[in-house]
Amino acid sequence: MGARNSIVLFFFMLFALSSASPRHKNKYKPCKHLVLYFHETVYNGTNVADATSAIVAAPQGANLTILAPQNYFGNIVIFNDPITLDNNIHSKPVGRAQGFYLYDTKDTITAWFGFSFILNSTDYQGSINFIGPNPVFEKTRDISVVEGSGDFFMHRGVATLRTDAFEGKYFFKLRVDIKFYECW
Amino acid sequence: MGARNSIVLFFFMLFALSSASPRHKNKYKPCKHLVLYFHETVYNGTNVADATSAIVAAPQGANLTILAPQNYFGNIVIFNDPITLDNNIHSKPVGRAQGFYLYDTKDTITAWFGFSFILNSTDYQGSINFIGPNPVFEKTRDISVVEGSGDFFMHRGVATLRTDAFEGKYFFKLRVDIKFYECW
Amino acid sequence: MGARNSIVLFFFMLFALSSASPRHKNKYKPCKHLVLYFHETVYNGTNVADATSAIVAAPQGANLTILAPQNYFGNIVIFNDPITLDNNIHSKPVGRAQGFYLYDTKDTITAWFGFSFILNSTDYQGSINFIGPNPVFEKTRDISVVEGSGDFFMHRGVATLRTDAFEGKYFFKLRVDIKFYECW
Repeated sequence: MGARNSIVLFFFMLFALSSASPRHKNKYKPCKHLVLYFHETVYNGTNVADATSAIVAAPQGANLTILAPQNYFGNIVIFNDPITLDNNIHSKPVGRAQGFYLYDTKDTITAWFGFSFILNSTDYQGSINFIGPNPVFEKTRDISVVEGSGDFFMHRGVATLRTDAFEGKYFFKLRVDIKFYECW
Repeated sequence: MGARNSIVLFFFMLFALSSASPRHKNKYKPCKHLVLYFHETVYNGTNVADATSAIVAAPQGANLTILAPQNYFGNIVIFNDPITLDNNIHSKPVGRAQGFYLYDTKDTITAWFGFSFILNSTDYQGSINFIGPNPVFEKTRDISVVEGSGDFFMHRGVATLRTDAFEGKYFFKLRVDIKFYECW
Repeated sequence: MGARNSIVLFFFMLFALSSASPRHKNKYKPCKHLVLYFHETVYNGTNVADATSAIVAAPQGANLTILAPQNYFGNIVIFNDPITLDNNIHSKPVGRAQGFYLYDTKDTITAWFGFSFILNSTDYQGSINFIGPNPVFEKTRDISVVEGSGDFFMHRGVATLRTDAFEGKYFFKLRVDIKFYECW
């Protein structure tokens, strides 16, 4: 396959991956839209000062400082990560992402999330609650925005996760596109 | 009590158990309806090749290969189970059920579920998110369908769980009737 | 600062704390409103007869009978607590609160809840599902009522938590104001 075809294929794949729900792509317009980043450092036994999360459960034979051997299957992680408006971890935080995820596949890496954004900035005050699956190797993953408090009272929507960066197994950064389709 | 009365009583009990929400029985019609099955084999220390789930947390004194002594109270189980269109575990899977449940009663068996169906078939593409209580000895149990992605974008509904089969403590099969009452 | 100013400041603070979402304070009226209490006693290694909950996961170095050292960060607790109509633990229970919470902050106490109320009284039959963050030192905290079954079929709303009492680290009582804004 020539270089030109490779490039065409590459862009085709990017396009194909760029929407998890093509059938609904342009049908609905969000009533509110936020783009936020959160930054996580998992405790690995030595990074206590920097860690924003910790493994608190593991399958038989595994421990709480090393992610479990089969693609982390069986680990539960509790986190409390800074949220920023851009992808720079040194930007002023606008809130905290708090909750948990668990790794639920042995032959690839997928996680299931239950957490909240607690926002406290001039733009937004309140919490947003999320649940849903995160197959981390897909370019985008949609989870559910099931409700919130304060500025997000009774709201519903979809949050699209993208991995903005990962450095080793114990640090990653997620971009979260929150689109509300039901606002009150 | 005579045999005839016993039979009448039996059918009366079946009827009484057959609806968890009689007051709403015929009032609303679902806008979408799916019936699916999922099949779970819990890791018990010896069945590593077949296991689709694992105990990852247990109360003080219990371990991760034997369900906890008081009706499993205090266990958290992470699962990744095949979903099929009928109750045959050998049927071609149409997706995976991924997430967790925890056992939360000492004097009977009840669980609390948080999980997703990830469907990938010619009929349906997308995920469906569930949370709610599962009192396993009731004939039917209703949990919440809080939203989804792809074909289930912003949908809401109710999922009725039925135990289709269980074989020992480490294998069970659930029938899931998913009725969406809010479709987008 | 004089006594009079202190009192004014005190009432001002009470007022400021009394609503987590002032912008929405009077805009919407609930279609259904319940006030309930639940009572929790965490297992601490010696109170097995009274305990209604247990620590089932802990961070590295901690155990399952003592709440973790950094404001309980990293603990997961499974609970099954009696629900009453008033704040008296000896009142007749109208149901059970079943599910889990996890502690997710090191420098203060905050929790993330996923649970259900299973109500079984002359007034209400059915379950109500909740998720959301609980920053325990705030006077009120709003979590999401994402749906239910029976009398709460497809309902959505907000639950405001207040700490009615705590006695030591292993007993607390929460008042829950459940306001449904979407009834079916």
